[in-house]
Amino acid sequence: MIHYTAIGKVMGGLLMLLAVLMVPSILFSWYYDSRDLMPLAHSGLISGGFGALLFFSFKREDNLIRKREGYLIVALSWLFMSVFGMLPYLFSGTISYLPDAIFETVSGLTTTGATILEDIESMPVGVLTWRSMTQWIGGLGIIVLTVAIFPLLGIGGIELFVAESPGPTSDKLHPRIRETAKRLWFVYVGLTVLVMILYRIGGMDLFDAVNHGLTTMATGGFSTKNASMAHFDIPFIHYVAIIFMFLAGTNFTLIYLGLKGKFNRVWASDEFRAYFTTVLFFILVLTGPIYYFSGTSFEQAFRDSAFQIISLITTTGYVTADYTAYSDEMVIIFFMLLFAGASAGSTSGGIKFIRHLTFVKNSLLEFKRMVHPRAVVPLKINGERVTGKVITHIMNFLLIYLAIFVIGSMVMSFAGYDMLTSFGSVATSLGNVGPAVALVGPMDNFAFFSPFAKLFLCFLMLLGRLELFTILVLFSPYFWRAN
Amino acid sequence: MIHYTAIGKVMGGLLMLLAVLMVPSILFSWYYDSRDLMPLAHSGLISGGFGALLFFSFKREDNLIRKREGYLIVALSWLFMSVFGMLPYLFSGTISYLPDAIFETVSGLTTTGATILEDIESMPVGVLTWRSMTQWIGGLGIIVLTVAIFPLLGIGGIELFVAESPGPTSDKLHPRIRETAKRLWFVYVGLTVLVMILYRIGGMDLFDAVNHGLTTMATGGFSTKNASMAHFDIPFIHYVAIIFMFLAGTNFTLIYLGLKGKFNRVWASDEFRAYFTTVLFFILVLTGPIYYFSGTSFEQAFRDSAFQIISLITTTGYVTADYTAYSDEMVIIFFMLLFAGASAGSTSGGIKFIRHLTFVKNSLLEFKRMVHPRAVVPLKINGERVTGKVITHIMNFLLIYLAIFVIGSMVMSFAGYDMLTSFGSVATSLGNVGPAVALVGPMDNFAFFSPFAKLFLCFLMLLGRLELFTILVLFSPYFWRAN
Repeated sequence: MIHYTAIGKVMGGLLMLLAVLMVPSILFSWYYDSRDLMPLAHSGLISGGFGALLFFSFKREDNLIRKREGYLIVALSWLFMSVFGMLPYLFSGTISYLPDAIFETVSGLTTTGATILEDIESMPVGVLTWRSMTQWIGGLGIIVLTVAIFPLLGIGGIELFVAESPGPTSDKLHPRIRETAKRLWFVYVGLTVLVMILYRIGGMDLFDAVNHGLTTMATGGFSTKNASMAHFDIPFIHYVAIIFMFLAGTNFTLIYLGLKGKFNRVWASDEFRAYFTTVLFFILVLTGPIYYFSGTSFEQAFRDSAFQIISLITTTGYVTADYTAYSDEMVIIFFMLLFAGASAGSTSGGIKFIRHLTFVKNSLLEFKRMVHPRAVVPLKINGERVTGKVITHIMNFLLIYLAIFVIGSMVMSFAGYDMLTSFGSVATSLGNVGPAVALVGPMDNFAFFSPFAKLFLCFLMLLGRLELFTILVLFSPYFWRAN
Repeated sequence: MIHYTAIGKVMGGLLMLLAVLMVPSILFSWYYDSRDLMPLAHSGLISGGFGALLFFSFKREDNLIRKREGYLIVALSWLFMSVFGMLPYLFSGTISYLPDAIFETVSGLTTTGATILEDIESMPVGVLTWRSMTQWIGGLGIIVLTVAIFPLLGIGGIELFVAESPGPTSDKLHPRIRETAKRLWFVYVGLTVLVMILYRIGGMDLFDAVNHGLTTMATGGFSTKNASMAHFDIPFIHYVAIIFMFLAGTNFTLIYLGLKGKFNRVWASDEFRAYFTTVLFFILVLTGPIYYFSGTSFEQAFRDSAFQIISLITTTGYVTADYTAYSDEMVIIFFMLLFAGASAGSTSGGIKFIRHLTFVKNSLLEFKRMVHPRAVVPLKINGERVTGKVITHIMNFLLIYLAIFVIGSMVMSFAGYDMLTSFGSVATSLGNVGPAVALVGPMDNFAFFSPFAKLFLCFLMLLGRLELFTILVLFSPYFWRAN
């Protein structure tokens, strides 16, 4: 039996929180005397009121939250937030077409950053701030899942690499989950405020600095400008974005350790080293071609390369220029990077390095096992042995991810889109990146898709953001069968 | 230390066998009074002579063949056969350009069936028969590997499903490998002769019947006609091809059981049921669109659908018509089927159903494990429990297969080919199918590729045919390091 009362109470609390998080956009609207003040206020009141109703209708029954309730809570959280999160768009009339409002909200809450807006700059400031805030909320939600929910549920096999500290010692960052969560939120909130200040120093106005700060740390990628980050042609701002996107894609536990000066423990993380070296490798490799094709200065070629590579690998999705227009090879590299993802325990989406690393390391060890069939050849990550169960888990995740990509691309093709657009839109949605290739390239938007395609891509964004299994398990008969 | 003398002796024996297998093409050449009699005779003499030299230079040292020698023997077998197998092309001057001769020979020996010939019908009969024979030899080689070598080496995790009989009892088909091998060769040779007779009855002349018989049972797909099987516009011939391609894609152990009347044990095989139902499903699904697009009779639409689906899934690669020209959706289905492969223990290449099945079944069980974390939920195939090690093995195979596909496609793209052609040529080479999409569609050939691209595709054919690991392990440092 599933305990819906416990779930209802959590949803109530969540909606009240959502209402509170609408306050900054209401303040912006009021400060700039924008036309969206009342719609935002109404959205907040309805969310908060409905949340309070749910919350106080049910008694606290912590003990009734088990695995099954856990999965439902995760899925329903994003569903409830999506339903109430799109009210500002609908009430203000800025996005009055329902599939579009759903798309923009889900793209925000999943930190994807794909947009159906054709002219972002015509939108009122309050709604735009809320739009950026949905991404920041999504990032916050992922940290909660990472710290508190995934280790409990054991999703996709990466839970082991998230809450634990790196290095040969297996001591947790802190034994109590609540304490760990506080520290990671401190990192998240602290870095968000810091990047806002730096954007402001770099020359953005208050509104742009706040909005881009929210979407940088969430690896979201929503911008207040039609030209995305290309609008701000200031090297300082681009370098700030480069550094903070990279940080947002780093395991927050490692950032905390770094802040405490324990750099050797940061570098001891296999995932961080793989993340760092891969990013560096691609930046250096692409600087040459970008310099060659664009005809800019070498500094700008390097900066653009770094910006674009980090934006893609961290699944942020900001754009400074459309390098896919340069050559077919660039399209392929761009496309491939849609499948990267940064670190577990960060706000980035996608597959993530810990899974790539597990696959690559285990493949190499398979050869060793072939040559030395009787030797025990364990897979070690961060100096610790990874069990066969976790390896199977992770490889199964990778295969399901690719299977969904293939099936999803077929669905989009049968819905009438060309192959590259289908592949690109599915890969970018599943990986929570934002821009893709062909008709949904870095300079395009998702407005032209049919309502079906939009809702289908929303489903893929949720699948990807919630590590596939959390959603897929709800479609299995095992979940609903009484045990 | 690697014992090269033992390897040399095996290679010697192999080359003598190769010379013997050149005799049928020599006989055809003599019978039809063809201009390629002497080149073929020379090829046979050189192969046999060199083989005898190798064979009698070394003493028999069975005990020196261990795992490491085993891998080298497998890889070198295909290499030696390729080098001597291309002599007829070179000596006769029919294919005098070296990369082309290599491509045609490797495509034959790996039962792929991609060709660089632009006008097949202008070739002399002896060389064409040798070309078909290379595929039949490849099929024979795979049965040897399947029965005797892979179970010894434990390649790709499917060895368990090959030599064992299906059904809940785990009794081997026969305890001694030599006896099992004999029975499977009996199946292979017997069905080859049978299909030749049926093709002859259907209206092919002796030469065409023999050639297509050789390439049908090998799931090879080389034809003596430019239009492939479309040349023979006789329903009976197409239905014979449909049935025998299906049989060639069935685990030969099951065919043997079927011949003995044990149909319930055939049907008890999970892989066979998956293979049978998948084939049937796609035939029925595609009959409609083919009927709609082609404007032919319903019978012909059904026949063409069955022919094309079975040709692709069994990795044969015969063509009756180019359905990829009909619509984008057909291209996608065609492309997807390049990744199917039929059964382990058959002559078909590619991924094969046992691996697809393991992945799908284990994924579903993962959901069950998520809901019932404390329950023991074993994966069972053919009624028997599959160990975690084998599951990991198989999933690792799938991921490496896909990784090679992606990297291979990038290599082809960077070599200057468009994305679809790159994807298609790599998928069809790795899967040992033959035809693909875009510039290498069902009606095209591979002649236009650069020498580099041809050799690279040859490498992929060998990788795919030898189940990846056999070749890849040779590139690992573990293999060459003295232990």
